[in-house]
Amino acid sequence: MPPEEKPLTGLFDPDSIAVIGASHTEGKVGHTLLSNIVSSDYDGEVYPVNPKGGEILDKEVYESIEELPSGVDLAVIVIPAKLVKDAVHECGEKGIKDCIVISSGFSEIGKVEMEEEVVKEAKKYGMRVLGPNVFGIYSAKADLNATFGPEDIKKGSIALISQSGALGIAMIGMTAEQYLGLSTIVSVGNKADIDDMDLLDHLADDELSEVIMIYMEGLDNGRDFIKKVEEMPEDKAVVVIKAGRSEKGATAVASHTGSLAGSDKIFTSAFKQCGVLRADGLREAFNWSRILSSSSLPTKENTVVITNGGGIGVLSADAAEENDVPLLDDQTFLNETFEDAIPTFGSTKNPIDITGQAGREEYEKAMRKALESDEVGAVVGLYCETGVTDPMETAKVMKKLHDEYKEEKAMVFTFTGGDFVDECVEWLRKEKVPAFTDTSDALSAMGALFKRKRYIERMEKREELTRPDIDVDHIEKVIQKARQDGRITLFEDEAREILDQAGIPMAEGKIVNSLEGAVNAAEDIGYPVVLKVVSEDIVHKTDAGGIALDLQNKEEVIDAYQAILSRCKEKYPAAHIPGISVAEMLEEGEETIVGGTRDSSFGPVVMFGLGGVYVEILEDVQFRVTPISKKEARRMMGEINSFPVLVGARGQARRDLTALADVIYRMSFLMDEIDEISEMDLNPIKAFDQGEGCKALDVSITLKRKVKKNE
Amino acid sequence: MPPEEKPLTGLFDPDSIAVIGASHTEGKVGHTLLSNIVSSDYDGEVYPVNPKGGEILDKEVYESIEELPSGVDLAVIVIPAKLVKDAVHECGEKGIKDCIVISSGFSEIGKVEMEEEVVKEAKKYGMRVLGPNVFGIYSAKADLNATFGPEDIKKGSIALISQSGALGIAMIGMTAEQYLGLSTIVSVGNKADIDDMDLLDHLADDELSEVIMIYMEGLDNGRDFIKKVEEMPEDKAVVVIKAGRSEKGATAVASHTGSLAGSDKIFTSAFKQCGVLRADGLREAFNWSRILSSSSLPTKENTVVITNGGGIGVLSADAAEENDVPLLDDQTFLNETFEDAIPTFGSTKNPIDITGQAGREEYEKAMRKALESDEVGAVVGLYCETGVTDPMETAKVMKKLHDEYKEEKAMVFTFTGGDFVDECVEWLRKEKVPAFTDTSDALSAMGALFKRKRYIERMEKREELTRPDIDVDHIEKVIQKARQDGRITLFEDEAREILDQAGIPMAEGKIVNSLEGAVNAAEDIGYPVVLKVVSEDIVHKTDAGGIALDLQNKEEVIDAYQAILSRCKEKYPAAHIPGISVAEMLEEGEETIVGGTRDSSFGPVVMFGLGGVYVEILEDVQFRVTPISKKEARRMMGEINSFPVLVGARGQARRDLTALADVIYRMSFLMDEIDEISEMDLNPIKAFDQGEGCKALDVSITLKRKVKKNE
Repeated sequence: MPPEEKPLTGLFDPDSIAVIGASHTEGKVGHTLLSNIVSSDYDGEVYPVNPKGGEILDKEVYESIEELPSGVDLAVIVIPAKLVKDAVHECGEKGIKDCIVISSGFSEIGKVEMEEEVVKEAKKYGMRVLGPNVFGIYSAKADLNATFGPEDIKKGSIALISQSGALGIAMIGMTAEQYLGLSTIVSVGNKADIDDMDLLDHLADDELSEVIMIYMEGLDNGRDFIKKVEEMPEDKAVVVIKAGRSEKGATAVASHTGSLAGSDKIFTSAFKQCGVLRADGLREAFNWSRILSSSSLPTKENTVVITNGGGIGVLSADAAEENDVPLLDDQTFLNETFEDAIPTFGSTKNPIDITGQAGREEYEKAMRKALESDEVGAVVGLYCETGVTDPMETAKVMKKLHDEYKEEKAMVFTFTGGDFVDECVEWLRKEKVPAFTDTSDALSAMGALFKRKRYIERMEKREELTRPDIDVDHIEKVIQKARQDGRITLFEDEAREILDQAGIPMAEGKIVNSLEGAVNAAEDIGYPVVLKVVSEDIVHKTDAGGIALDLQNKEEVIDAYQAILSRCKEKYPAAHIPGISVAEMLEEGEETIVGGTRDSSFGPVVMFGLGGVYVEILEDVQFRVTPISKKEARRMMGEINSFPVLVGARGQARRDLTALADVIYRMSFLMDEIDEISEMDLNPIKAFDQGEGCKALDVSITLKRKVKKNE
Repeated sequence: MPPEEKPLTGLFDPDSIAVIGASHTEGKVGHTLLSNIVSSDYDGEVYPVNPKGGEILDKEVYESIEELPSGVDLAVIVIPAKLVKDAVHECGEKGIKDCIVISSGFSEIGKVEMEEEVVKEAKKYGMRVLGPNVFGIYSAKADLNATFGPEDIKKGSIALISQSGALGIAMIGMTAEQYLGLSTIVSVGNKADIDDMDLLDHLADDELSEVIMIYMEGLDNGRDFIKKVEEMPEDKAVVVIKAGRSEKGATAVASHTGSLAGSDKIFTSAFKQCGVLRADGLREAFNWSRILSSSSLPTKENTVVITNGGGIGVLSADAAEENDVPLLDDQTFLNETFEDAIPTFGSTKNPIDITGQAGREEYEKAMRKALESDEVGAVVGLYCETGVTDPMETAKVMKKLHDEYKEEKAMVFTFTGGDFVDECVEWLRKEKVPAFTDTSDALSAMGALFKRKRYIERMEKREELTRPDIDVDHIEKVIQKARQDGRITLFEDEAREILDQAGIPMAEGKIVNSLEGAVNAAEDIGYPVVLKVVSEDIVHKTDAGGIALDLQNKEEVIDAYQAILSRCKEKYPAAHIPGISVAEMLEEGEETIVGGTRDSSFGPVVMFGLGGVYVEILEDVQFRVTPISKKEARRMMGEINSFPVLVGARGQARRDLTALADVIYRMSFLMDEIDEISEMDLNPIKAFDQGEGCKALDVSITLKRKVKKNE
């Protein structure tokens, strides 16, 4: 494909449309599609094409593409797969600018070549192709419903991309039913030409789209995706439902880091990195899109909840905690602000209880206090059915306040109860006020606003990414040597050399198998040293007397070497002992793992976690797509559950997080720049007390299985 | 209160009702309540009482209670609080059997005495009192809606207890709107007489109630609650929404275990223990209650999902994993069973994709294959809006199959899309078929069925709880001695003595502060021994040379004692060293914690977790309400996230789980029987390899602050 493709504006805002394969028969896709176009408010020309001619839906039918007037912008093709190529050819000849191939029966059933020919034909005429195997598109800009899905689509500011055609159709129905306004809805189908990335480019410039919601099953080009999302204008949020969470990743891998790759964790990390809001499922994605398209972001890290019921208040406090929605808890401020607005038996403790007697006036008074205060970042209004007050009156107050304050404050409302309160939610939704029937939904939506706010703040503070000093040429030479030997696993001294060139500190050490070797190694390393038996058969090395610490001189090394061998041979007579490791005596520290691997979606990634059980059993690790800054590395470290261990929990000293972050940062560039490295682990890398740095104790580097030819 | 209270059957199935405070004014509680009674299908007599007389809703009004005919079963009292006592007196004199006090203004605003007087008055006449401060009751048995909530209540088999009146009213509305049938709904209000426990007793015997759903904010008597739930008939499931999850527990506590008490974790553990299904919020509770009241439990640990869309299939597989719904994955079986039922381009991989073309016949064929097979435990049917097939036709097939197989197989259905498919869900719900619009909801509901199935199977295998041999008298004497000293913390030798009497093994050891003491201790304990410096100032004892392992005789102890002191003084000149611990040399093992504490809701509980970081930072612990069997202790151990560490992960040996379970079991009885112990920790208790037992290395026991007078 040429480097610069034609933008998709023509596809989403055509002046005229030809429906190739418009059908006379109701219920057929070619009929439904034409009917949807005609019944939408689209004011361009619509030309049905069908060899049978006649009229469909009062439109004159053209018997062939050739007969069409010239200058048609878009062809929507709904004919059997085998006829599509010729139709595209004719469209091209006729000067039609773009086309959507609805028809299925291409690469999804193995007919890859037939699909490629269609695109090749289109490219001859500079046409872009959406599909094949799509349900069509809806575009609010053109008031155009060119799908064979439901007729009724509400106009709004949410752009919906679906990687599943079937689910896309269901989602159109869902949005209409929930009064969720769309700017566009489109599925990518077989992505023969236009893919998700093209759509993201288009939506980045589309002024109608404020929220982009994507149903995603996979990503071929995760790095592109991240880049495009990062480059989105600040006021466009991206919400993704990533399905296939339960699927396990790649199979045989050589390292700990590798075994965790391909996993859903990497999607989570990558999305976090670029500010994608990852929703659990359809409901959450819809709820988040609703609030993102109708509310400002919180101005401060706090929230005031106004409720007419204690029970619903408690449930909202639970949901607030779960969704990282911080509740304002400065009781002095709350008392001062709300004391005049709270009836007898009410409570100024947040959630603020204005009691079951509260009608429209009480709600307005209390809500207004919260909305008017500069100290309040976000406001949640809860109404619980009482049988006493009229919920619609309260709903009207909420709309009024939303209209007044929506540009300033984050707001969300819920109405809990039966039919009558559900009507309030429906009415508010029609009026573009973010309202829910369920407290958890509302707080989850508010949580999405806070996530978005925090991401934007982070981005504002982001600094330019500077490259560390890594000697790529030197490293590539080391790798070349291994390649010449036909090895994909590097020797320890090679791996050491690479770390050295990347500026990653590693403890001095050597494996020896003679007394002389031990002494020489100790002299090289410098005293004190540690001797440790190397044997897979001796699991509990301390108990076996297989470790000697703090050896101060040659004599102690000689004694220790002999003692270790004799004790181990006594306790484990059958053990194979390939050597003894001589290493510098390190200070006390916390063992962590820093790893790098290549993910099938996102390419090179780095991983961080505490050592041992934390990684292997609890999978308490975080990933990042490379390269990353030291700041991002530091944030990544903070995201593991066991992070408190590193900052002085349990009476330990705070470890050198700066040094660890530097290693992760360097590793991220190493993985990014040295394409030959498939996986690497620093396991463990020991973090010493703050200011004392960190050192890798062991390193393993595995190369890619095949040498690339043209790189 | 007398030990045996009158049962509540009269309250829920009265032959006649007097409404004391029936109102002429529409919108008033006394009017709405009467109106709800009259418009429900209740066929008993209804007598409005109001001093103004006249007629309300075509019913003749009695001017006083005295004028009522005799033999009225139930009085519903809706008059100002201060008049209630006299009204109750008059009701008693008139021979009315029970009463519901709707009126508020009692203990909830501090008027405790006034409330007590009402109950005292009622008791004189043997009347039971529900309330005050309740919304009334609904009883399907009597076709009676005696609430001031919504008029419309669907009859069914779900009993709803709400600890919040306001939320109760909203929930009535929600059940009606969602076509969820109720057997009863009741709030306990101020619980002046009737409390949750009385209601559970009543519902245990109520044949209409198949599911008991409770909105709970707290529990005064958690142990009673557990007992009553455990004793529920097997076919009655209990679903609880426990609000206040985010509230933190008790304040100052002396042990690790104590610091985790009062926490929400204990509710989770206790509920698990007695088979309560704990729902996250209202939606989940409603969904679970729906399926539990309309589906059988799974017959096997597997599930087949039939879907017409790949996307919705993937989402359901994700949701299945999250909700512990096991998908059948024997591909040979799946191929054999479904190959004839799958159209071209469909898939026999579970979720089984019968493609978007699938209409009623294809659904019936595939579903029937699954339902007819003895190998399939549960079936999920998913329909995704296509624009091609008629969902209502499919819904009808689903109802037919549900009717046919509901006594044999667990089943759930979803319809995803817009208005048109929502109608299908509504229709199915009316027909008592468990149907949802959201795949996650459906799989969460199916997950509840599996949880229930597993609980019942566990209960069936449960053995009688046998008491371990604990010398209570001896232990109480030890405690008495500490009490005489005015201590609440036990000395180590006292704690050791208690463990000994409870049959809990502890490592031999002693803290000494002289060389002579060290040698004597070592001789007492028996060689080999370990010496370790005791000092809070020396954090890294190994690095400081503060530990000497595997000392084989007197001479080695003497050398080690002196070496430890001199090394530590050299490295930490300022450290305060109160002594040196001499302990038996233990085998290698895994450090765990077993603790006991007293929870404000559930009384004595035991806790288990791995040592150190796991407990303190990751809070990876499990609780149980005491006493428990060894089997339950073993299950509890299996529930911690780090459990794989104990069973041979990472090349380690499998630890002695039997021995650990025995300790937890014994600790549970110790906490249960020795009421004086407030908290205790075995931290750490080291588990050796399988068959080698376990030994506590340290123990701390704290007594309750005040001695109880009458125990």
